[in-house]
Amino acid sequence: MPKVVDRNARRYDIADATLRLAAREGLEAVSIRSVAAEAGMSAGAVQKYFATKDELLLCALDLSDERLVQRWRELPGDAPLTDYLREALPLDERTREENALLWSFTARAAYRPEWARRIAASYRELHDMLVAALGGTAGESAETSEGRSVDDLAHAIIALTDGFAHRMMQHSPDDPEVEGLLRALEHAVTVLLTTDPLLPSGPQGQTGPVTTEQ
Amino acid sequence: MPKVVDRNARRYDIADATLRLAAREGLEAVSIRSVAAEAGMSAGAVQKYFATKDELLLCALDLSDERLVQRWRELPGDAPLTDYLREALPLDERTREENALLWSFTARAAYRPEWARRIAASYRELHDMLVAALGGTAGESAETSEGRSVDDLAHAIIALTDGFAHRMMQHSPDDPEVEGLLRALEHAVTVLLTTDPLLPSGPQGQTGPVTTEQ
Repeated sequence: MPKVVDRNARRYDIADATLRLAAREGLEAVSIRSVAAEAGMSAGAVQKYFATKDELLLCALDLSDERLVQRWRELPGDAPLTDYLREALPLDERTREENALLWSFTARAAYRPEWARRIAASYRELHDMLVAALGGTAGESAETSEGRSVDDLAHAIIALTDGFAHRMMQHSPDDPEVEGLLRALEHAVTVLLTTDPLLPSGPQGQTGPVTTEQ
Repeated sequence: MPKVVDRNARRYDIADATLRLAAREGLEAVSIRSVAAEAGMSAGAVQKYFATKDELLLCALDLSDERLVQRWRELPGDAPLTDYLREALPLDERTREENALLWSFTARAAYRPEWARRIAASYRELHDMLVAALGGTAGESAETSEGRSVDDLAHAIIALTDGFAHRMMQHSPDDPEVEGLLRALEHAVTVLLTTDPLLPSGPQGQTGPVTTEQ
């Protein structure tokens, strides 16, 4: 196995350990030492890959993003938009870890502008991907009511998904309340997709596939 | 001044210092000692009111909730729903502090079930208040499509507000992007309120006042 692959695999093992630890005990529990213990490595071995706690955390956030995109790639091409949204929600242990990390980052970004920029950039990418999937062009036609509507709709769908994910985090994945919240999310998305009077192509239903190619 | 009022005022001064400190440096920076310094008091004086860091943080969260309800009470009775939502958004330094605290709590609640329960209870209260304002009855008529729709709509409006608040936290309040996000939120809420085909009384417009009596 070429050395570079080996190096990446090792980085991801460490990032995975960081993600597990941060979800279980919070960002403040993350250190080179604690992550090394979680990964079953020596602190010196971890430091060959990551010099600081912040590098560890950013790599864990990247890993979390990549896992989501990987799940999206595995969906059938004609899956409805709500199937894509579902993958971002804390509906099992794994996605709960990812969400816990995301909310911890947000909390920290409130007083760390460079983290806020990292998160904002990732949202911008997600937004533009969603605008394209909805059949619009982000920004370009922002002056027309149509362009604005697709931009706004994409923002709204992202916000709904985040807001419901935030609610679901207050319950364990098997709490019946989570099912009700999921239904409310899907209902709201359907209403927005089918009845927004400003959408360029009129009522669209909920069947348009979302491409996740980057 | 009766002693009990004095005691409450002092508790609130300390909670206010906790809120400022947590927003500026994160929950991990909060301790009896650091809060005492922020409030200009001795650690011993703070400990007369709060025995632990968790008590400090919960009181700061209560204060944050109360500030929001107080702003709602000051709105004219016929203010549109979007004016109420706006008060919950991080649009200035004060509301940014409140939001930073809320997201920190959520992050921590991921591994502290009792905090998750505290947050879930506060959301339940907010949801039922909103259902009543929309002219429905939470839970009672959940079996009918109408009851479900008002319940779902209230969940969606809360989720939209939280999701957009989360996005706005990645920008400073004077960033032009915040204005675009605010417009997208108000557009989505208007669409949900005016075009949901399942709402009991049909299209409602955006004019219904929200009562905030508790």
